[in-house]
Amino acid sequence: MKLSARRDGDQYVLNGEKTSISFSSSASTALMMARTGTPESGAHGVSAFYVDLNSPGVSRTRFRDLGSRAIGRGSLFFDSVKVPVSARIGAEGAGFVQVMQGFDFSRALIGLMCIGAAQQSVDETCRFVAEREAFGGSLARFEGVSFPLAEAAVELRAARLLCYEALWLRDRGMPHGWLAAGAKWLAPELCARVLHQCLLLHGHTGFSLDLPHQQRMRDVIGLEIGDGTAQIMKLLVAREIIGKSARPY
Amino acid sequence: MKLSARRDGDQYVLNGEKTSISFSSSASTALMMARTGTPESGAHGVSAFYVDLNSPGVSRTRFRDLGSRAIGRGSLFFDSVKVPVSARIGAEGAGFVQVMQGFDFSRALIGLMCIGAAQQSVDETCRFVAEREAFGGSLARFEGVSFPLAEAAVELRAARLLCYEALWLRDRGMPHGWLAAGAKWLAPELCARVLHQCLLLHGHTGFSLDLPHQQRMRDVIGLEIGDGTAQIMKLLVAREIIGKSARPY
Amino acid sequence: MKLSARRDGDQYVLNGEKTSISFSSSASTALMMARTGTPESGAHGVSAFYVDLNSPGVSRTRFRDLGSRAIGRGSLFFDSVKVPVSARIGAEGAGFVQVMQGFDFSRALIGLMCIGAAQQSVDETCRFVAEREAFGGSLARFEGVSFPLAEAAVELRAARLLCYEALWLRDRGMPHGWLAAGAKWLAPELCARVLHQCLLLHGHTGFSLDLPHQQRMRDVIGLEIGDGTAQIMKLLVAREIIGKSARPY
Amino acid sequence: MKLSARRDGDQYVLNGEKTSISFSSSASTALMMARTGTPESGAHGVSAFYVDLNSPGVSRTRFRDLGSRAIGRGSLFFDSVKVPVSARIGAEGAGFVQVMQGFDFSRALIGLMCIGAAQQSVDETCRFVAEREAFGGSLARFEGVSFPLAEAAVELRAARLLCYEALWLRDRGMPHGWLAAGAKWLAPELCARVLHQCLLLHGHTGFSLDLPHQQRMRDVIGLEIGDGTAQIMKLLVAREIIGKSARPY
Repeated sequence: MKLSARRDGDQYVLNGEKTSISFSSSASTALMMARTGTPESGAHGVSAFYVDLNSPGVSRTRFRDLGSRAIGRGSLFFDSVKVPVSARIGAEGAGFVQVMQGFDFSRALIGLMCIGAAQQSVDETCRFVAEREAFGGSLARFEGVSFPLAEAAVELRAARLLCYEALWLRDRGMPHGWLAAGAKWLAPELCARVLHQCLLLHGHTGFSLDLPHQQRMRDVIGLEIGDGTAQIMKLLVAREIIGKSARPY
Repeated sequence: MKLSARRDGDQYVLNGEKTSISFSSSASTALMMARTGTPESGAHGVSAFYVDLNSPGVSRTRFRDLGSRAIGRGSLFFDSVKVPVSARIGAEGAGFVQVMQGFDFSRALIGLMCIGAAQQSVDETCRFVAEREAFGGSLARFEGVSFPLAEAAVELRAARLLCYEALWLRDRGMPHGWLAAGAKWLAPELCARVLHQCLLLHGHTGFSLDLPHQQRMRDVIGLEIGDGTAQIMKLLVAREIIGKSARPY
Repeated sequence: MKLSARRDGDQYVLNGEKTSISFSSSASTALMMARTGTPESGAHGVSAFYVDLNSPGVSRTRFRDLGSRAIGRGSLFFDSVKVPVSARIGAEGAGFVQVMQGFDFSRALIGLMCIGAAQQSVDETCRFVAEREAFGGSLARFEGVSFPLAEAAVELRAARLLCYEALWLRDRGMPHGWLAAGAKWLAPELCARVLHQCLLLHGHTGFSLDLPHQQRMRDVIGLEIGDGTAQIMKLLVAREIIGKSARPY
Repeated sequence: MKLSARRDGDQYVLNGEKTSISFSSSASTALMMARTGTPESGAHGVSAFYVDLNSPGVSRTRFRDLGSRAIGRGSLFFDSVKVPVSARIGAEGAGFVQVMQGFDFSRALIGLMCIGAAQQSVDETCRFVAEREAFGGSLARFEGVSFPLAEAAVELRAARLLCYEALWLRDRGMPHGWLAAGAKWLAPELCARVLHQCLLLHGHTGFSLDLPHQQRMRDVIGLEIGDGTAQIMKLLVAREIIGKSARPY
């Protein structure tokens, strides 16, 4: 938490930076978490602010990323940026809990973003191997070609249902944290693997930037990292199913 | 189809054998498919019969199997066994379609049988690693121990939802063949792997017949084979998602 | 280390037990490690003894195991068992280092034991699928059948070379600990998977105790555990390639 | 084979095209296979030529590829390009056998190219996780981080030995076709997976183009396809270990 917000009358003054922020190079406003308490206050010293990114004192950089380039990931720097008190969302110190609740939600959505991309590639690859002639018949006759697609279709369906169940539980206000964490691990990893396979099944053409499978794979790799790595997700699941003893440190 | 049924007045006369039959050594009656048409009549020459296995002319053998021993798999032999016409289930020649419809149903159920066994072992193993002390603390502190359990819990949940969706679709009379086939591949393979892992996480004790994980693994391996191998299931899925061209011969 | 050896004149008196000992029920002599120092002396307080298991005070139990039944794993109990000083192998307190050196050696050998069993099953399964007729031709025409065997053959060859390299380095007195540990993880896990696959490729017959693949799989699962689990092996490799920081506690 | 060479006195006249050619956009000369026989002559109607790519009638395109951009893959087009008879390498019609022999050789080399890239990333990632602080200690304390690296190191060593054995056999004039094919499947697939993992272990930074792991992964994906896909390699291995019956069509 490298961004602090100091109360000054009816304003807050923001100093510090935020990194790995989506749309950092193009967004006109952003919802930011900033530390309003002391460093020792931990999670309870974090508040949410809705900040005009065209304010004086804001500067930006953009990362050169492997994928998700439409997102324009980068850093935001705040040098004595003034925001009105009315820009604070929720009570002072309530920011962290707000974010954590949103994480559960967004994790299942990230799973579905990945599944959408991978399913589209599976559908396109099924059509390709059915139409493509090789060695005197359709490429789809070969089980070395059709079986990976069959496996992908089944695994994608199972992963999709996992995401749906997490969202369905949330809609009913029921616990869904470990399912959302599980979906955030399972779906991106599966989809990166499936998209890699779809790329390969197109042969030399699949390696060209002219086909979309490589772009989708690069985008999904970004979603494997964003909002928490596979290791973090597995740790969250482990604590839920094993209990506190599954706490490495 | 090595069992034939020849109409003789108000009776059928059964000759031939059936192999790999569950409960063959203990059942008192069985629903059997027998060929009532010519060999050339194919699927349309098969009828269903409800047969008293204590009838004269029936003999039995029992296999020595790796698992599922409560099932008592074996062969049934029929030497001029007479059954009344009233023992025929459905119209003559309608047997194969009846069985195939039942397969879709039973495939999702087999998936759930496997998932029940694997989930039980995951639950027991979670308790074991939480309580077990090793190197000065709970075994569950080690991510090499807790992560395989977290992965198993998530994958089992996804596979369970896949089975549920196949049954839910069937209840509504909607197409579900590829989902049931997918579940029959995914769930047994996953569960055999998970049960193997639970066995290993118990160390030397897990290798003893005193713990149940090894038995469940042996049983589930039988369910990987019964009612159609993984290859058959993947072929059924491939034909659904790719079309007729995914037909190897 | 639940076995102690107390010096008494020209004898040692052994008290305690040893568990998970191969051939415990049939061996006439055994090389045992016993604590000759205080509990605080750690690895330096362990000595090796060559013990006559028919001595007064020795009793035995045998485990009921999933596999490796010819090995007859079990426990040995020592109640004031007297052995002459001449039965001590090496200097007092030198036992642990002797064992550890042997572990590196035996780990590569365990890998080869597994590979021998798995290669035999791959060879037999290749012949089976070539000869077996299904759907109007050899079962081997199906890539869903031949590809898993091709993958197994290649992976087994690579794992075999890994074991050979560890032994070759040992013969030359060069460091080989991480390679032997790696072989002890890679080979048993791979071979259990390959044997499981060979069992499945034989269909219903493969599930019977009449075919050897299920026995070899059960034996290899024991070798996944014996002399150190996969987790211990990976930890040894991690410390070698990453350094001391890869020490969880 | 879309390139033909027609003899015309002491020259050959080349017409047609070659696609997916490495260095097509920058090479000054190329060794090309062209059809000197009738289309029906098959493999026996192919000859090798050493062609000056600055000759009149040669044109080029360059592909936009996911990786291996230094290679400059593209197409070469030949419009009545004249080459002297002395540019033919070997006897007329001997080209295909020459290429096939080279393939065995190059397949093991491709495996080593992949392994070199992946090993470099594993080494760099080991240093990174040892130095990186997270949650109050080195990132390497977490087995979720160190175990994937340990597995990668062991699998890379095994794959490297497989490539070495294929080359060692070739040096001795011994059969090595299936080993080279196996290496061309195993190593690129393994290395793409390992490089993907190294990228992920670097977190947000790993996703940036500033770190080399993503480039190596993209390059290796190209080597999964070039000189024969995984499916072709597995088919070659299957025919060797199973025999002619492993021939799908």
